[in-house]
Amino acid sequence: MTRYRGSVPLTSDWQHFRFEVADGVGTVTLNRPEKMNPLTFESYADLRDLLHELPHHDDVKVLVIRGEGRGFCGGGDVNEIIGELIKMDAHDLMGFTKMTGDTIRAMRECPVPIIAGIQGIAAGAGSVLAIASDFRVCTARAKFAFLFTKVGLSGGDMGAAYLLPRLVGYGRATQLLMLGDTIDAQTADRYGLVSQLVGEDELDDACEALARRLADGPTMAYAQTKSLITRELDMPIGSAMELDAMTQALLMTSADHSEFHAAFNEKRDPRWTGR
Amino acid sequence: MTRYRGSVPLTSDWQHFRFEVADGVGTVTLNRPEKMNPLTFESYADLRDLLHELPHHDDVKVLVIRGEGRGFCGGGDVNEIIGELIKMDAHDLMGFTKMTGDTIRAMRECPVPIIAGIQGIAAGAGSVLAIASDFRVCTARAKFAFLFTKVGLSGGDMGAAYLLPRLVGYGRATQLLMLGDTIDAQTADRYGLVSQLVGEDELDDACEALARRLADGPTMAYAQTKSLITRELDMPIGSAMELDAMTQALLMTSADHSEFHAAFNEKRDPRWTGR
Amino acid sequence: MTRYRGSVPLTSDWQHFRFEVADGVGTVTLNRPEKMNPLTFESYADLRDLLHELPHHDDVKVLVIRGEGRGFCGGGDVNEIIGELIKMDAHDLMGFTKMTGDTIRAMRECPVPIIAGIQGIAAGAGSVLAIASDFRVCTARAKFAFLFTKVGLSGGDMGAAYLLPRLVGYGRATQLLMLGDTIDAQTADRYGLVSQLVGEDELDDACEALARRLADGPTMAYAQTKSLITRELDMPIGSAMELDAMTQALLMTSADHSEFHAAFNEKRDPRWTGR
Repeated sequence: MTRYRGSVPLTSDWQHFRFEVADGVGTVTLNRPEKMNPLTFESYADLRDLLHELPHHDDVKVLVIRGEGRGFCGGGDVNEIIGELIKMDAHDLMGFTKMTGDTIRAMRECPVPIIAGIQGIAAGAGSVLAIASDFRVCTARAKFAFLFTKVGLSGGDMGAAYLLPRLVGYGRATQLLMLGDTIDAQTADRYGLVSQLVGEDELDDACEALARRLADGPTMAYAQTKSLITRELDMPIGSAMELDAMTQALLMTSADHSEFHAAFNEKRDPRWTGR
Repeated sequence: MTRYRGSVPLTSDWQHFRFEVADGVGTVTLNRPEKMNPLTFESYADLRDLLHELPHHDDVKVLVIRGEGRGFCGGGDVNEIIGELIKMDAHDLMGFTKMTGDTIRAMRECPVPIIAGIQGIAAGAGSVLAIASDFRVCTARAKFAFLFTKVGLSGGDMGAAYLLPRLVGYGRATQLLMLGDTIDAQTADRYGLVSQLVGEDELDDACEALARRLADGPTMAYAQTKSLITRELDMPIGSAMELDAMTQALLMTSADHSEFHAAFNEKRDPRWTGR
Repeated sequence: MTRYRGSVPLTSDWQHFRFEVADGVGTVTLNRPEKMNPLTFESYADLRDLLHELPHHDDVKVLVIRGEGRGFCGGGDVNEIIGELIKMDAHDLMGFTKMTGDTIRAMRECPVPIIAGIQGIAAGAGSVLAIASDFRVCTARAKFAFLFTKVGLSGGDMGAAYLLPRLVGYGRATQLLMLGDTIDAQTADRYGLVSQLVGEDELDDACEALARRLADGPTMAYAQTKSLITRELDMPIGSAMELDAMTQALLMTSADHSEFHAAFNEKRDPRWTGR
């Protein structure tokens, strides 16, 4: 628990996905495999709220997002979400699109590193969850489909038109967002969408190993690295250099930095504390 | 015709390239193949003006740019353009460079998707036309040469120093813009410059198929996707999320979005109207 | 020597690396191969100061950075730098991190093109020197390691969190900066980190050939190309177009541009003067 908590309690019961914590690793499992783990009004809200709480969970050093069954996340369900949206007025529509954007922004602004483990389709909102994660660990069966225009909507859903050009360049991003076609894991890897490509039976182990490594490492250094990458996408070079300089000067006073030096000279592995 | 027309007439006769409209697809053909389809003072002006008019042509849903003969566009002709430029004073030079920049900017800001079909060299201004397009459909004989430094000018012509780093990263962009060397289609594809690589005999069909698809699709969704990609290159994440949220909420009220839902439940293809 | 010099003398004796000038090419050689050419407090300061002076050295048209022996640059030495840092107070730490940032920023803002010739490891600060260069000429034995988190520090050292996402996208950048793992030359090339990949025996010749070409070419055009790439990473499209237009209009009045035209019509090579 961080020092700066007020009256708001932490949520103990997440009802719209499975959330488990073990040994520093939090795992969200989207668990409606019979519908390809769709996002619903409720699971969006839960994900948004969990991301806002996460920095206050001292027992969670890294978040893994998985989907149960054959796919990662098929996006919004056609009838559960689209069927409702087309009946809504401006007020409720805006509330919905702001919430989904808030969820993705929380993924980028959350100091906890996020790993998406992708064994099948990541479609629509599912593909945006994937690109807003810090790491995309994929099997050869992973697929990405930014399919928004196929339902008559803008390809720039939930920040995709901001994120994807900064991930793969605006050429590939235009192709993916305007056409909405599905690409396979090999193509995604060639474009730079994949952080790690693993065998089909290796996904659980690969996600666990990466999560383990991040949870056991210098977590303050990881958190600030993520924060700098997120923030410096929006900063000019002079300001970015200043932010880097101040961040690094602060981290040079950290216990973890001293611990590295001590461990180096004692020829042993560092014991990181995230302080 | 859009609802918001004033006194200005639409141009019926484009004299400095061929412009044809068929079935929702506008095609600009640079048609001086004996000189590799150079841009001239007049054809730049025509292209700038056409792009400003295009949103008011209700019969044009997509624009294809092609070059006649062996190449796409060799850029400015050495004697027709450079020979004149070196005689000009500051006033006229600035007028020229602002016009060429306006042309490229109009390509990025025009809501109509633009396809460049490239069967040979795209050099100088021709290479910038290519990267300002939304899609680059290329054969194996396509070549790109950002050759500005070779004529003693800055590699940042017409926005190339803004666009190319956002397309292929500043490393590749520095190499291409500073040295001005020609790269072949395979290299361009590896760098992320190529949207679709097709056989030599397939270029016409591939451009037509992509244009057909874009013209027959949810054109308002496509236009807004393009606009978001263009604008969000210049926006911080929070503002981009807000723009996405407002755009998507508006498009959720569109006829095309409702039509998708109806078609889905009736198990038929949607009939898009672009509204 | 430029026209605009005041009282400050140029430095004639660089003590913390070897600096040689021959035929328009300046070469910095980091020359402590027994420690993998580490950066020290003094060599950072020398590099910062040299870069600020360089625009006033009329005899240096291009800068090459090399490392002696098996590697390029192993970054800050653990005991010489880290050992000292952990004893410093806020004032001195900030002084250090601002200096290192100033060095990298000077590389990007210096109008002289910079070539890094990399035959082995570029680690830590060495990897940031590499990505702040305009060209990375590498052998198959080149390696990159943004290893900052491994010493308990932020991956965003010296502008890396600004530069790397603009070079290879934020996905690859997150992987490299957060994990700090070493990548080989082939992986670096695939990511877009390598400008030219050459055989092991060819590095000296390749660096010399590229430096020769840049030194003998239209240097004002090269300098402005570099400046536009650096500046337009931070500019919106409209402003970038305006900067391009003004720059190009000015360069159209240059002797080099006229010389190109004359040489073209006389069917000979241009004789560039950089004016």
